[in-house]
Amino acid sequence: MKELKDYVRTIPDFPQPGIMFRDITTVLQDADGLRLAIDSMQDLVKDLDFDVIAGAEARGFVFGTPLAYNMHKPMVLIRKKGKLPRETLSVEYELEYGTATMEMHKDALQPGQKVLIVDDLLATGGTAKAIAKLIEASGAEVAGLVFMLELAGLEGRKTLEGYKVFSALAYEGK
Amino acid sequence: MKELKDYVRTIPDFPQPGIMFRDITTVLQDADGLRLAIDSMQDLVKDLDFDVIAGAEARGFVFGTPLAYNMHKPMVLIRKKGKLPRETLSVEYELEYGTATMEMHKDALQPGQKVLIVDDLLATGGTAKAIAKLIEASGAEVAGLVFMLELAGLEGRKTLEGYKVFSALAYEGK
Repeated sequence: MKELKDYVRTIPDFPQPGIMFRDITTVLQDADGLRLAIDSMQDLVKDLDFDVIAGAEARGFVFGTPLAYNMHKPMVLIRKKGKLPRETLSVEYELEYGTATMEMHKDALQPGQKVLIVDDLLATGGTAKAIAKLIEASGAEVAGLVFMLELAGLEGRKTLEGYKVFSALAYEGK
Repeated sequence: MKELKDYVRTIPDFPQPGIMFRDITTVLQDADGLRLAIDSMQDLVKDLDFDVIAGAEARGFVFGTPLAYNMHKPMVLIRKKGKLPRETLSVEYELEYGTATMEMHKDALQPGQKVLIVDDLLATGGTAKAIAKLIEASGAEVAGLVFMLELAGLEGRKTLEGYKVFSALAYEGK
């Protein structure tokens, strides 16, 4: 029986020499891979107490929405700047070069709600931490974070210290 | 019992006077609304013969992936320029001001595969038509297109003439 890692395509030296790029499009492009990815993530959080799922544009939507559907939870979209029609809360986060801004509708979450953050990849944890801050700025709580894939060598769990972090698949390296 | 339209938030005069903006974030932010949206779309295509689902960044991911999971189909991601690590096919499409480019991995689809395109909104049909062209450029076929919401007054179905088009909810206006 195939495991989740068997569906991931590794591209050596991309985008730079020495980097092993983990391509998750091949997981999604296989009906069994997609099912295994979602089921594995769901299994990790099945006993977690949470009310809402939040996912950030764009790959957080890919994994967040099926989990929300399966677990019968609301799904909150965290979007890039300027995409949401109503009043928003926003957070700036660092990219490799420069910064970007994510936004969430001000009325998307209620104070005290427990939020599960869903994303494809845990790398340095910078984006995930920014999402967590955005959620906390609304008065809601972060119940945990679940990722399909973790690059353990980048120590994202250190950045996310104090939060419950789950990943369906972890690689030692960067 | 609530219908799908009861979950949509209408914002008058946004982004310009005279436009009724249909906000779908409120559908997703309700566990029952999310379930109803996905189930309604799934019901529309349950007898359609297709092999693969394709969704375009970012909201095509929101609706496409739960459908792919539920119907046990592969999910192909169509992304904005520069996001995919391997060789791509690309298509340019028109925005209100200027143009943008969408890309798909060259090996994502096989010739002859039947593809269901999933997206949130059918407006003028310009983006959907571009997605269809991209799929056809790979040698695959478009089996149909399913949208959560259609703005019938913008006549997207005319733009998509010759394709099977489904929408879970249609508004008369623009």
